[in-house]
Amino acid sequence: MLEQMGKDAKAASWQLAVLSSADKDRALLAIADRLDAQSDDILRANALDMADARQNGLSEALLDRLLLTPARLSAIAADVRQVCRLTDPVGQVIDGRRLDNGLKLERRRVPLGVVGVIYEARPNVTVDVAALCLKTGNAVILRGGKETFRTNAATVKVIQQALLGCQLPPSAVQAIENPDRALVNELLKLDRYVDMLIPRGGAGLHKLCRENSTIPVITGGIGVCHIYADETVDFEPALKVIENAKIQRPSACNSLETLLVHKAVAPAFLSRLSRHMHALGVTLHADGAARPYLADGPAACVPVEEANFHNEWLSLDLNVKVVDGFDEAVDHIRKHGTQHSDAILTQSLASAERFVREVDSSAVYVNASTRFTDGGQFGLGAEVAVSTQKLHARGPMGLEALTTYKWIGYGDNLSRA
Amino acid sequence: MLEQMGKDAKAASWQLAVLSSADKDRALLAIADRLDAQSDDILRANALDMADARQNGLSEALLDRLLLTPARLSAIAADVRQVCRLTDPVGQVIDGRRLDNGLKLERRRVPLGVVGVIYEARPNVTVDVAALCLKTGNAVILRGGKETFRTNAATVKVIQQALLGCQLPPSAVQAIENPDRALVNELLKLDRYVDMLIPRGGAGLHKLCRENSTIPVITGGIGVCHIYADETVDFEPALKVIENAKIQRPSACNSLETLLVHKAVAPAFLSRLSRHMHALGVTLHADGAARPYLADGPAACVPVEEANFHNEWLSLDLNVKVVDGFDEAVDHIRKHGTQHSDAILTQSLASAERFVREVDSSAVYVNASTRFTDGGQFGLGAEVAVSTQKLHARGPMGLEALTTYKWIGYGDNLSRA
Repeated sequence: MLEQMGKDAKAASWQLAVLSSADKDRALLAIADRLDAQSDDILRANALDMADARQNGLSEALLDRLLLTPARLSAIAADVRQVCRLTDPVGQVIDGRRLDNGLKLERRRVPLGVVGVIYEARPNVTVDVAALCLKTGNAVILRGGKETFRTNAATVKVIQQALLGCQLPPSAVQAIENPDRALVNELLKLDRYVDMLIPRGGAGLHKLCRENSTIPVITGGIGVCHIYADETVDFEPALKVIENAKIQRPSACNSLETLLVHKAVAPAFLSRLSRHMHALGVTLHADGAARPYLADGPAACVPVEEANFHNEWLSLDLNVKVVDGFDEAVDHIRKHGTQHSDAILTQSLASAERFVREVDSSAVYVNASTRFTDGGQFGLGAEVAVSTQKLHARGPMGLEALTTYKWIGYGDNLSRA
Repeated sequence: MLEQMGKDAKAASWQLAVLSSADKDRALLAIADRLDAQSDDILRANALDMADARQNGLSEALLDRLLLTPARLSAIAADVRQVCRLTDPVGQVIDGRRLDNGLKLERRRVPLGVVGVIYEARPNVTVDVAALCLKTGNAVILRGGKETFRTNAATVKVIQQALLGCQLPPSAVQAIENPDRALVNELLKLDRYVDMLIPRGGAGLHKLCRENSTIPVITGGIGVCHIYADETVDFEPALKVIENAKIQRPSACNSLETLLVHKAVAPAFLSRLSRHMHALGVTLHADGAARPYLADGPAACVPVEEANFHNEWLSLDLNVKVVDGFDEAVDHIRKHGTQHSDAILTQSLASAERFVREVDSSAVYVNASTRFTDGGQFGLGAEVAVSTQKLHARGPMGLEALTTYKWIGYGDNLSRA
């Protein structure tokens, strides 16, 4: 079944690849307009999904993620209009020159072709990803979470009608509407047609893709993020950064999970930390060396377990560990981090530069919150995903990450010497 | 067994990542010097490999690929000195600016970490790949062909001694010295330590890697390359380009396998082609529409089979097909090509531009030979591999393809709003 879908997507991608930016923006505007005009269809499908979700006993938090309202849908349409305003990277000449062998060579940015996206829950991702792929001339195959299959199907139907209205192939945006998980495995093997696969979900989904996909996969989105407060740390500003990294949005992958503190400042700093975290309702998970300074403080404090250092809390919990110095801090990050976002809080220029060089993460910060790792914050205009792998794209992925390049050589009936 | 190798490589990569360009070049010079000084050790090991290879009845062509001579080894050492003269991409700031949120953000080029390379035969690849990886601050795990295991082991030993002499970890360059194929499969799963895998070999090796590796793989090196001679083609210069693409080095992946000819020029052009190819000893494999114009010509001509269009000849054989026009030519390339290198021979500007836009290959040429697809020809200074996939690097891969980037954010105890 997916074979045909892949074939259609590839065929659509040939058409999209040669569209002008203006044509693509026209299609995006048509999609936004139709999302507004046919919002009832989508909201009706969403109501059915919501009813099922309630019956299946999903948590209030999850239900809220699934829910579409007229206001939310209208915000989604507005986001599509926003994508029109971004610069289209396709067609950009990256570099080029006339070579000594006579060849006029240039590297031109082109679409990837067909992008596969596997995601969970949030129905806004459907529109978001479709818009970014169309903007960059890519066809897309979407496989959303089973809780929103009807919402997604209704949304994709509206998008396809808009594409048809612009004389574009509806197979440019397709959704796998059957929630059967076997189809995910089928998608992972569709390397003849799909050029890149982006899983957006938990660690299990990423592992499944890495182990089974024959398509190049962008993994990421899992963040065991660290802050290292060294022996020169300025207490009060540092506590504010730690607060921001931990509590601004604990469920985000760029939130802080483990605080490393230099032993020289541990007694004084940790006692301030306990007071500060208590006021915020954060539970501290302390290692043996940190506990003496935290046990009597106001914040809840329990012993940390080794496994805690390897996992995201995604909640108001924070691991605290005292280290002997810089090397132990970096060593801890290398062993437990996910190469997402890590920060040092220091007044030492030398330590800042060493940290930047030695910590091998997608984003490394000096005296700044790990929460900045985000396409919007980085000024990319859009975010397709956050990659924590090293090939193709690293960290927040903007429109450029949805493109590749081709080499173009012009000659005058030129042969290689 | 490989687990420890991976762990050691990763540890070495931390040290390499922070070396200055001067330190890396010093290590490369030490390696070149030692290759010269200890050439006897390597030549002795090569003589044993050669004796085995002869006993196993390898062809003369293969034996020649395996053979090291004092002159060849000295050329290999000279190539290492040449790598010193290339610009080190590590540390380069790709872009950066102060964002409205206050963050001073930059993107800095950094090594990938650990690179795995699986290759066949040629013992020069061992030194070549090691030098390029060291130049870019990467550790490397090599798995060479079983025919040159002793040569590779002796070579890596010399490299490791040179590294030790520079106070660098010998585990920066390691070889899997056991020819057991099961170890290849073990290497493919070493994603905890290896950041990128480059298979350099035939289609079977690439398939094995794509299907089994949990490490991001760069596939490529298979080239079913096309030339399309359209209805405006200038006969005599075109025949020279076709000759260059077909016979300059038939065993290369960028050599021509299929010639597509517009029906309007087929009668005259194919009769000229037959004479030209006859003189070069090329056998033509013609489709039904081309045969009438080739059957009576001097060049050997047999009917083409559908399978021929999908495979590399790597010999003095050429498929010839007559097409109705541009669309059929592009369609044929899409269906049978490997997205390596394809060319159009035309005098029409419009057709040239359409071909460049619509043919989705790593390298696309207008009036130039497909043989140009090569790191040296493209002025990259070095070639790690030729990628025919779209992620990370496409076409000839130079030093830059052995790097990734990290985002670095500097703040003044900055929190996200």
